[in-house]
Amino acid sequence: MARLGGCWAFLCRCFFQYETPKILLIRSKKVGALNRLVQALILAYVIGYVCVLKKGYQDTDSVLSSVTTKVKGVALTNSSQLGLRVWDVADYVIPPQEESSFFVMTNLIVTMNQTQTRCPELPSSSTNCSSDKDCSAGFVDVRGNGVQTGKCVNFSDSARTCEVFAWCPVETDSEPPNPAVLANAENFTVLIKNSIQYPKFSFGRRNILPDVNTSYLRNCIFDRKRDPHCPIFRLGDIVSEANEDFQSMAVHGGVMGIHIRWDCDLDMPESWCVPKYTFRRLDNKDPDNNVAPGYNFRFAKYYKVADNVETRTLIKGFGIRFDVMVFGKAGKFSVVPTLLNIGAGLALLGLVNVVCDWVVLTFMKKSNLYKEQKYSYVDDYALVSTSHQFHLFL
Amino acid sequence: MARLGGCWAFLCRCFFQYETPKILLIRSKKVGALNRLVQALILAYVIGYVCVLKKGYQDTDSVLSSVTTKVKGVALTNSSQLGLRVWDVADYVIPPQEESSFFVMTNLIVTMNQTQTRCPELPSSSTNCSSDKDCSAGFVDVRGNGVQTGKCVNFSDSARTCEVFAWCPVETDSEPPNPAVLANAENFTVLIKNSIQYPKFSFGRRNILPDVNTSYLRNCIFDRKRDPHCPIFRLGDIVSEANEDFQSMAVHGGVMGIHIRWDCDLDMPESWCVPKYTFRRLDNKDPDNNVAPGYNFRFAKYYKVADNVETRTLIKGFGIRFDVMVFGKAGKFSVVPTLLNIGAGLALLGLVNVVCDWVVLTFMKKSNLYKEQKYSYVDDYALVSTSHQFHLFL
Amino acid sequence: MARLGGCWAFLCRCFFQYETPKILLIRSKKVGALNRLVQALILAYVIGYVCVLKKGYQDTDSVLSSVTTKVKGVALTNSSQLGLRVWDVADYVIPPQEESSFFVMTNLIVTMNQTQTRCPELPSSSTNCSSDKDCSAGFVDVRGNGVQTGKCVNFSDSARTCEVFAWCPVETDSEPPNPAVLANAENFTVLIKNSIQYPKFSFGRRNILPDVNTSYLRNCIFDRKRDPHCPIFRLGDIVSEANEDFQSMAVHGGVMGIHIRWDCDLDMPESWCVPKYTFRRLDNKDPDNNVAPGYNFRFAKYYKVADNVETRTLIKGFGIRFDVMVFGKAGKFSVVPTLLNIGAGLALLGLVNVVCDWVVLTFMKKSNLYKEQKYSYVDDYALVSTSHQFHLFL
Repeated sequence: MARLGGCWAFLCRCFFQYETPKILLIRSKKVGALNRLVQALILAYVIGYVCVLKKGYQDTDSVLSSVTTKVKGVALTNSSQLGLRVWDVADYVIPPQEESSFFVMTNLIVTMNQTQTRCPELPSSSTNCSSDKDCSAGFVDVRGNGVQTGKCVNFSDSARTCEVFAWCPVETDSEPPNPAVLANAENFTVLIKNSIQYPKFSFGRRNILPDVNTSYLRNCIFDRKRDPHCPIFRLGDIVSEANEDFQSMAVHGGVMGIHIRWDCDLDMPESWCVPKYTFRRLDNKDPDNNVAPGYNFRFAKYYKVADNVETRTLIKGFGIRFDVMVFGKAGKFSVVPTLLNIGAGLALLGLVNVVCDWVVLTFMKKSNLYKEQKYSYVDDYALVSTSHQFHLFL
Repeated sequence: MARLGGCWAFLCRCFFQYETPKILLIRSKKVGALNRLVQALILAYVIGYVCVLKKGYQDTDSVLSSVTTKVKGVALTNSSQLGLRVWDVADYVIPPQEESSFFVMTNLIVTMNQTQTRCPELPSSSTNCSSDKDCSAGFVDVRGNGVQTGKCVNFSDSARTCEVFAWCPVETDSEPPNPAVLANAENFTVLIKNSIQYPKFSFGRRNILPDVNTSYLRNCIFDRKRDPHCPIFRLGDIVSEANEDFQSMAVHGGVMGIHIRWDCDLDMPESWCVPKYTFRRLDNKDPDNNVAPGYNFRFAKYYKVADNVETRTLIKGFGIRFDVMVFGKAGKFSVVPTLLNIGAGLALLGLVNVVCDWVVLTFMKKSNLYKEQKYSYVDDYALVSTSHQFHLFL
Repeated sequence: MARLGGCWAFLCRCFFQYETPKILLIRSKKVGALNRLVQALILAYVIGYVCVLKKGYQDTDSVLSSVTTKVKGVALTNSSQLGLRVWDVADYVIPPQEESSFFVMTNLIVTMNQTQTRCPELPSSSTNCSSDKDCSAGFVDVRGNGVQTGKCVNFSDSARTCEVFAWCPVETDSEPPNPAVLANAENFTVLIKNSIQYPKFSFGRRNILPDVNTSYLRNCIFDRKRDPHCPIFRLGDIVSEANEDFQSMAVHGGVMGIHIRWDCDLDMPESWCVPKYTFRRLDNKDPDNNVAPGYNFRFAKYYKVADNVETRTLIKGFGIRFDVMVFGKAGKFSVVPTLLNIGAGLALLGLVNVVCDWVVLTFMKKSNLYKEQKYSYVDDYALVSTSHQFHLFL
């Protein structure tokens, strides 16, 4: 019984105890100043940089976004091939809707009334021929327009090429018209509606801000200075803000990035969370180390004429694809990253002792005095009580 | 030789030494209890919150996803303009395939047999005219349908507007039919196939789970309670789960988000990693601070009639765009974040001493006794041995 | 005055002081070796794993990307239904452009000359009938082709099915042709242009590397060994690199992922930042727990024939959708993560003392000697001055 009581008292003693390091307190102007300086530096870093600048006390989330676009505008063209023609949004936006990008055709090469039949291929090193022997029936060139029939026929008065079975006549692979056919696309406008969410914080917002009224929206055009929150953009402005020339870009086409950045500090009022628009050309306009510069693709309109024969109008459409890219980061106070940073900051405060000890025990005149006070020794080599040995050394 | 040996011995001594702080062990119920309490709090935070709740021991990766969709359903409409007509998937899904979204047309305004010619523009403040002087040839209104010819013509018995060169007749800019033409789209179904990957962990999974059999898949319809893993959704259910009314949404169109969340703990059995579906309306249905509410776009079908004249049927299609958004985070045990968190946790344990020392040395009755034991002093000011000075003070 | 001076001196004394823990230095081969070993292990982890392997000193950013694609190739088909026909890019890429994916049709079921009229539905358990009573007028099956008229008509000599109002004749729901109609798509090529950005570091790059010249680009084909940086891919190569068979995939279609990984260490020369291409099949080709295997969708070409009657050609297109997925992470030296990791590393060094103290004070023969030197005691239980008590013990 007494034994048990003793055991219990021992456990109590172990539990109700507190270990605190023994401290040597050096009162010295030099050492103290050094100490406070190093402390101040580390505190300044932890508070200033981690907390204020980098917002290390916040948990972050990245954005989920949905974009819809609507282009408006009409252009008139007059070419020998198509005659006088007006182009509206159903004609020049292809496909009519996409998820977060839109394509506006600015230039085109039209090949009308193609049918499935035989015709001479375009002249090139692999299609030029002088007799049927130069052409092999069934051969398909991956860069050609059709399947060779094995005959050599007149392409023009001067050139003979292999005949192909293809959509004929084949498209003449020439440079696109310059200036661009739909040069007027510069004045088209696009309404971009963007709705974002930060799922971790259940926070949603739209690029049409709550304090903007409807009548303003009907007539505004985005302008970085005067109308920075208007969601309607003139295509020409988008391109010129990216320091590009719309008219020269319109000829061969290209890809423009419309970047919408939503950097939101959710510890601040919600109305501070506004989108920031920037524009950038994404494709490479340099002719060097480039292939197929600009942006174009081919599509066709299919018709059936008399006798049920299918014909098509092939269009090589050059134009500008606008990719709307939404990105950003929301931050909100959270306990985990805060304590992670405080923990790391405290650990850095441990550096104070490392630095100061090194200076104090190495460079100070009285370093021996400090050493004597700071250190006790247990020396296995000498197998004598340390402090005696130490005094003997002195 | 003796010297070298001495030097070597000195280096050995430096290397084979161990610095451990001298500790003052205070055995006191009050102090001990305080100590254990603060320790317990910090340990509870580190273990409970960081490790269990926030899974701070895991490395995370975000999802890479691929989505395919397939809509099914047929709707019958009967209008004076189009007559009796049946609509199938090739008619109402435009474009026929997209990467991770699909559009279902629910309502439409059709303008048939448009050709490139001249006709009166719709009446508006900028197109109303009383004589040719009010119209300027070549003027293009960005919100208009064509290019003004400079003539003022009768739009109706009562109104005169400027004539335009355009696809004529121009679309009458009226409200869409209500109820929606394809109101039956509510019963259409969509099969969503989603395949995800966490590239960092080489982990892939599909939303058709391995334990689901094929015959079930042919007939099931998603239901949050009874069939939560069926990948076939009724469009009406998607909209009503988001607390919206399909029939009123169908009139002007809108954008729905289908969110698929893959939160996977890869330390757990793979079969616990299942997708969670939620639905949300993404566009703004409020008429305030809004412009062009709903979702619609224009597209055309082009025909060639006799004499090679191109005509088109312009369709302003209203409908619901469903954006499939896949997100989520996978976590798996990893050494770096674990040790980062342990390190930060240990540093936080350093807080125990800060708190306890402050309490013990400030508020305890016996604080002077503790101070005396904890601190030694080297005082440059007095230039006397500290311990003597200290004893003198006492 | 003297008081104030004294107060000031006291504050000075507090400010200009430096607390450093008192250290017990144990000089012992065993203890020293243990100490150095644990230190070495922790340092090796911090430096080797966190800094070198995981690059813990870097801030990271994820990629923003823009992709354009251009398919080339021609295929010849010969079927009883369509006759001899050549297919080019405008025929088999649907829609003609997408944001970061492209679809190449490899197989198709064509239903020509559909008009809006009445015809027998395909036989199935819900459409087979023996008399008009079995059919209900107005009934729409979500998996059917049209709206039932209520009549039971002959589907073939042997089968009778309910009549539907639909696009007639309805598509025969048969298996797609095997081998695939456009089997030659294996030889098509695609040019993929990818432009990426790391917005946090204002760093941009293209997959056409600056040191590649234009004439090389015109003729190269991607090959993992010989041409790893050529942006032109043969479709057959993409599929076979993913260990799939193109010809069998072409029959029912499928989804391929083209993964472009941009892992860039921006502390290194920019030219080390190159894209890495991998290919993977994304859809499930197993017939088990699957529904609608492969990838297909329906689209139609609309025609107007004589008398203004609209007809259409319905195409069920099977093919391969290629999803270009761009991902990656850029890292660049940054102060915050570096110090966060150093802080955590230092805190881990604190573990050295925990481990060594435990070993030294528990297992060493001379542990009593060490304890005696390391610890001082203040014992509230005995209510005697600790050092006296301690000396008495000795």
